[in-house]
Amino acid sequence: MNYKMMGKFISRILLVEAVFMIPALLISIFNNEIKSVAGFGFSMLITLLLAGILMLFCNHCSKAFYAREGLVCVGISWIVMSLLGCLPFFISGEIPNLMDALFETVSGFTTTGATILGEVEKMSRGCLYWRSFTHWLGGMGVLVFVLAIASGGDSKSGFTMHLLRAESPGPKVGKLVPKMKTTAEILYAIYIILTILNILFLLLGKMPLFDAVCTAFGTAGTGGFGVKNDSIAGYSPYLQNVCTVFMLLFGVNFSCYYMLLIRQFKSVWKDEELRFYLGAVFVSVLMIAWNIRGLYGTIGETLRHAAFQVASIVTTTGFATTDFDLWPALSKMILLTLMLVGASAGSTGGGFKFARLLLILKSIRRNIRQVLQPQKIQVVRVNGQPVDEKILENTNAYLAIYVIIIVVSCIFVAIDGFSMTTNISAVIACFNNVGPGFEAVGATCNFAGFGYFSKLVLIMDMLAGRLEIFPILILFSGAAWRHK
Amino acid sequence: MNYKMMGKFISRILLVEAVFMIPALLISIFNNEIKSVAGFGFSMLITLLLAGILMLFCNHCSKAFYAREGLVCVGISWIVMSLLGCLPFFISGEIPNLMDALFETVSGFTTTGATILGEVEKMSRGCLYWRSFTHWLGGMGVLVFVLAIASGGDSKSGFTMHLLRAESPGPKVGKLVPKMKTTAEILYAIYIILTILNILFLLLGKMPLFDAVCTAFGTAGTGGFGVKNDSIAGYSPYLQNVCTVFMLLFGVNFSCYYMLLIRQFKSVWKDEELRFYLGAVFVSVLMIAWNIRGLYGTIGETLRHAAFQVASIVTTTGFATTDFDLWPALSKMILLTLMLVGASAGSTGGGFKFARLLLILKSIRRNIRQVLQPQKIQVVRVNGQPVDEKILENTNAYLAIYVIIIVVSCIFVAIDGFSMTTNISAVIACFNNVGPGFEAVGATCNFAGFGYFSKLVLIMDMLAGRLEIFPILILFSGAAWRHK
Repeated sequence: MNYKMMGKFISRILLVEAVFMIPALLISIFNNEIKSVAGFGFSMLITLLLAGILMLFCNHCSKAFYAREGLVCVGISWIVMSLLGCLPFFISGEIPNLMDALFETVSGFTTTGATILGEVEKMSRGCLYWRSFTHWLGGMGVLVFVLAIASGGDSKSGFTMHLLRAESPGPKVGKLVPKMKTTAEILYAIYIILTILNILFLLLGKMPLFDAVCTAFGTAGTGGFGVKNDSIAGYSPYLQNVCTVFMLLFGVNFSCYYMLLIRQFKSVWKDEELRFYLGAVFVSVLMIAWNIRGLYGTIGETLRHAAFQVASIVTTTGFATTDFDLWPALSKMILLTLMLVGASAGSTGGGFKFARLLLILKSIRRNIRQVLQPQKIQVVRVNGQPVDEKILENTNAYLAIYVIIIVVSCIFVAIDGFSMTTNISAVIACFNNVGPGFEAVGATCNFAGFGYFSKLVLIMDMLAGRLEIFPILILFSGAAWRHK
Repeated sequence: MNYKMMGKFISRILLVEAVFMIPALLISIFNNEIKSVAGFGFSMLITLLLAGILMLFCNHCSKAFYAREGLVCVGISWIVMSLLGCLPFFISGEIPNLMDALFETVSGFTTTGATILGEVEKMSRGCLYWRSFTHWLGGMGVLVFVLAIASGGDSKSGFTMHLLRAESPGPKVGKLVPKMKTTAEILYAIYIILTILNILFLLLGKMPLFDAVCTAFGTAGTGGFGVKNDSIAGYSPYLQNVCTVFMLLFGVNFSCYYMLLIRQFKSVWKDEELRFYLGAVFVSVLMIAWNIRGLYGTIGETLRHAAFQVASIVTTTGFATTDFDLWPALSKMILLTLMLVGASAGSTGGGFKFARLLLILKSIRRNIRQVLQPQKIQVVRVNGQPVDEKILENTNAYLAIYVIIIVVSCIFVAIDGFSMTTNISAVIACFNNVGPGFEAVGATCNFAGFGYFSKLVLIMDMLAGRLEIFPILILFSGAAWRHK
């Protein structure tokens, strides 16, 4: 294991994290929030100190870096980042319990949006800003960001590829352009432009600037932390619809936007995952709107709430305009299913991903056909291209680990004695980075009631969900730590 | 598609079914249950008539028979068998609703044990006997029975192998001996001997003969239909423990018993699935006993209830000695997990099977190791033997279909508006052939409240679960019906 290289990389991440705390510090100063100023000040100091120590010890290192190192490095980076990122909440006293502060921060970075706070509006502006900003940072990936600003020289050693593969969601990592650094830059550019557009549209609807920025961060990262106790319910229908549209936009594979930029409209139009994603959203909205008819005054209002909640859940954002826990069973089951599926690969959303579901469904169809016509060789195709058998195998294996983690986590969390629906939906909502679940962890409730052990399990679920399992799973494997 | 061959085979099954109705008819006559006598009499007539017509039209047929025909034949056989098997309930007026009668019969043949009856004790003895006997017949497989009594000549055409493969549970079908007919005979011999032993042990505990026979049928088939409203709760602790032991015995792979008969003790002792199965039972009993401490008077009683319910659920039987819906969350979550796993491959139990879970876990471990040591070729081994990659692939594919069927069924069933826990546990309990679930379908409740559509979905789930999905799934595929 190349510990020095890992140390060097983590020191860079900490540096970036400390720099990203500056806006929150400034907001705290500007709003005269003394405790938050202290919180961010000390946190930055500690983070910089740690970064300095790591840099000192890990300066000279070999360039040898394999997939194993990449995965472990990503897993540890996210844990270290979260441990330091929770310090402002803890030091400022806004979240006096360290485990709760860690839960909230992991929930932020992993773009889950599950909160332990009952009263969000009591929080200082500085902390609220930092809380939402963790979503934005976690959405596209901190490591991708570091790669985007890092020197391009590393790419030769396979270092960047291994890291990007470990942090990026989806069954396969496509480089948009041959150079990894440029790919990371393009992704971040699209991300920033979409975020700015989102802020502008929110400002047009007369949302206050602070709210608009924080809401856009939560939307862009498909996170779900808001600045109001009632999430998005208090804002105007126009603002809610803006959120709906932008949540859906951030759930699209970002390579589609790149294709639009380079004017390959046809490949976007024919993209099977995009069609599947939008089709599922459309059908879900119609089914739920039919199912909740009569609960709201007009058809328009019914459709608005249905579309908002579907967009929020399918993109694993977790905003709410209404308490969907009060909806009928069918609507809730559709939402639970959408939680499991999640957004598109290569988007900022979590979950199993439509791309994987597409592969699974196509290989099931292939299996059936193979039984019926054993003499014919059947190839699975996506977007007209044959899919490598290795990718199909990995996708099936991913599903297996995915199911087992959910089941095991449900058993662990059940120790706290909540209802079965609470436990199952809490695990699914955290593991798929959605945020709210049903019953005791519904849209109007929070995760504060769980015990330390359950919170730790859910923290691991959130990290495993965001990093697509392997970087976290591998940390528990003894073989990962043995010297070769 | 070789329809004539299928027709011929189905006619034989109907013949066997009619013959098997004779004991129920005799019991009805003996107990002066006029309506039941009429029910069984007319049902036998209709069944024989249909068998005759099929025989007449499908006498001369080619021997060409492929996997496709095998699967379709098994799927249709089970549906036809259930349609005719439900006639006694309907004609006698014991279950006046045809859909309910079909639900009860499918639940019987698939060894699910989910009932639509609130008052079991009101039923006539003839119908009660038939209800329990469907479990016994469905447990080992009706087709296996027909094969055991059929002439051995068919085996050359691949006919028997395709049928046995389609009806037998587990990731691979092992022939105990080279000849398929002999394998079927050995399996049934073991099954009959174990059933008789079970009846004797129950009689020793002073259980009435009728109860003992019906309870043994329910245990042997891992079904779960009882003859009392409170299932097994009213019987003595000795009788409950007898049930616990025999449920566990019927959840063991029957090839283990064959190995014992031919004195290969070592291979039984080292069997990984057996160890996994018994280990899971042991750990679950301890965890639940700890979790429900204080609910019952003594440690002995606590352990008895914990062991009974674990054995009942893990073998997918579904008997109950206590209302486990009142147990704490952890115990219920463990039971729900055991429902998903089910019993051993090659047993009469349903579910995903320990053998498959073992393969899944081992291939996950392989996947992790492959990331860590990409240069080393890793082979998955079970019982010291390398496992064919094709079997691993099929197991992963099976999991994918398994998960998708559960999710889709949950959405369908949710239309009736029951709670999420009810819906999820109803689908899991039916699909894995367990029987009772939680809340509205808990151990003291029944499935009568569901609508027609939901019952049809659950009927399909029960059949798909018992036949391990493909024989039922394939009936929905257009390609299966096209002429080649």
